[in-house]
Amino acid sequence: MTLPHVKTIDDIRAILKDLPAIDQEALDKANAREPQLTKPEGSLGRLEDISHWMAAWQASYPPRVRSVHCNVYAGNHGVVAQGVSAYPAEVTKQMVQNFIDGGAAVNQMCASFEVDLQVHEMALDQPTHDMSQGPAMSDEDAAEAFFYGMTTVKDHTDLLCIGEMGIGNTTAAAAIAHGLYGEDAGLWVGRGTGIDDETLTNKIKVVEQSVLVNKEHLKDGLDVMRCLGGRELAAMAGAVLAARLKRIPVLIDGYVSSSAVAVLEATQKGALDHCLVAHKSVEPGHVLICEKINQKPLHDLNMRLGEGSGAVLAVATIRAAVACHNDMATFGDAGVSTKGN
Amino acid sequence: MTLPHVKTIDDIRAILKDLPAIDQEALDKANAREPQLTKPEGSLGRLEDISHWMAAWQASYPPRVRSVHCNVYAGNHGVVAQGVSAYPAEVTKQMVQNFIDGGAAVNQMCASFEVDLQVHEMALDQPTHDMSQGPAMSDEDAAEAFFYGMTTVKDHTDLLCIGEMGIGNTTAAAAIAHGLYGEDAGLWVGRGTGIDDETLTNKIKVVEQSVLVNKEHLKDGLDVMRCLGGRELAAMAGAVLAARLKRIPVLIDGYVSSSAVAVLEATQKGALDHCLVAHKSVEPGHVLICEKINQKPLHDLNMRLGEGSGAVLAVATIRAAVACHNDMATFGDAGVSTKGN
Repeated sequence: MTLPHVKTIDDIRAILKDLPAIDQEALDKANAREPQLTKPEGSLGRLEDISHWMAAWQASYPPRVRSVHCNVYAGNHGVVAQGVSAYPAEVTKQMVQNFIDGGAAVNQMCASFEVDLQVHEMALDQPTHDMSQGPAMSDEDAAEAFFYGMTTVKDHTDLLCIGEMGIGNTTAAAAIAHGLYGEDAGLWVGRGTGIDDETLTNKIKVVEQSVLVNKEHLKDGLDVMRCLGGRELAAMAGAVLAARLKRIPVLIDGYVSSSAVAVLEATQKGALDHCLVAHKSVEPGHVLICEKINQKPLHDLNMRLGEGSGAVLAVATIRAAVACHNDMATFGDAGVSTKGN
Repeated sequence: MTLPHVKTIDDIRAILKDLPAIDQEALDKANAREPQLTKPEGSLGRLEDISHWMAAWQASYPPRVRSVHCNVYAGNHGVVAQGVSAYPAEVTKQMVQNFIDGGAAVNQMCASFEVDLQVHEMALDQPTHDMSQGPAMSDEDAAEAFFYGMTTVKDHTDLLCIGEMGIGNTTAAAAIAHGLYGEDAGLWVGRGTGIDDETLTNKIKVVEQSVLVNKEHLKDGLDVMRCLGGRELAAMAGAVLAARLKRIPVLIDGYVSSSAVAVLEATQKGALDHCLVAHKSVEPGHVLICEKINQKPLHDLNMRLGEGSGAVLAVATIRAAVACHNDMATFGDAGVSTKGN
């Protein structure tokens, strides 16, 4: 499909005002089939909800999980100058090379579950501005990164996983959350790749200051994305919006991913209804963000890696859900007695 | 390998006294590799523990997840005469046919994750005795079912999933738990395939009575298995014991499976250390049993189907864990800077 034109953040605002909804016909078909399947009603729990959700957002029946893509976006952050990460900024580029060479965790996940991996470098040599001193991006830069993300979503995708890599981006994620929802900055800040107590205290201060410095600009979620986000975060939000337009359900990874896309929900309620958060991250702010965007993470495996690793892991659960819904025998077909007969 | 001889329950007691332990060398190798992988330490959470656990119990390194089997055991229960289930007893046999025909949920799970499914009918035309009137099985019957389960575990299996089908077996599972751990019978009783309030009240009474009637026989976990279990439950416990002897890690499914194998742990502490509970069932007693056997279920997806469906779903997570451990690049290989460098 042809994507709408995005040159400014206002163009994104316009798109968000008119989002496609679920397909009621596909959902009705899923609801009609479910009670006929040879199992006690409701006994597959969330798997039942998932297969219906897939059909409703794919706007076709039966749901499909053949063509699955994972898009990983990488960016660098000016705010690392404030000493908020355990790793140096060069690691972003080194890890991108590791993705390309097939050596990262997400590569093994994708190989395990037949997921196609794409890695998108977002101008790694030009970090965003240091958000603790002013807006991380200009309107044009943010819109460009967002639109780039939109263009990375392929037509005819059945399920999209989004992930990220970017030294310093848990700081950006925390600043986004603090900018969107307020509360204590400390609630949103965790240890990221593994910082010590002193760095943690500093990271909280940097997040507080970043929101304070940018306060006057923060009118809606997209302003928060521009001032406190980063290129890879804007691209993820763009990909999620494009997926909505293309009727592709999305698996969101962990803390950074959830924070990146929360700007859409904050700007337009319901903008993430075609998304599922794949897992609950160890980052303490993640549970809170999930509450704010009305999501119950699918898995809880103590992970905090990013890269889309949690999202791709959840593809297996989606596949199983859809396989059960589509391929199980009905009581009639199998000659199995129903309840109370 | 040649299995030890089991003719009586005492033969099982003897085997339980001398179980193989983890392989420290394999575990050391896993621990040595983990910090070299290109990710922040600990960031794969439980996936890291899982790959180490696999190596330690397979007693070889690197861990493998190629040959995965799911064994489903089906049995019928005399106690259904007490009106404890929403479905008639014939459904056990009908569902076995459904497994054979490929129409059940577990078939779709196995197809999704390349798991080999075996279904074992345990004398469906001869239900166990009604446990609310006396012991469900004689010593010989229980030992025979247990040994049969032992023989179903194939050599050279990398991972074994166990599951069950048996109208009335959530009642047996609750009676086992009540027999092993005491507490209020009501804590162990749930709605199974979906019974109404009146049937639930009756089910609690039947569980109470079953434990009371058999009280004098219940000296250890294996007595509980004999008096309050069933053939498919004894077979599951047997399979888990044989897996231990053959150095095969096991995924336990939900409430009924956990209760069935809890008799081993109650008889010999540590007997389930080579097992992981795959998911937290909706059956309210499951959380409690998991506490008693020191297990933290891997997934929580509101499922309550049995059949090994939750266990097979978790195979995907084990595969991903092992793939990450075995195939990720090291910091050295990939030229990625380590923390603080």
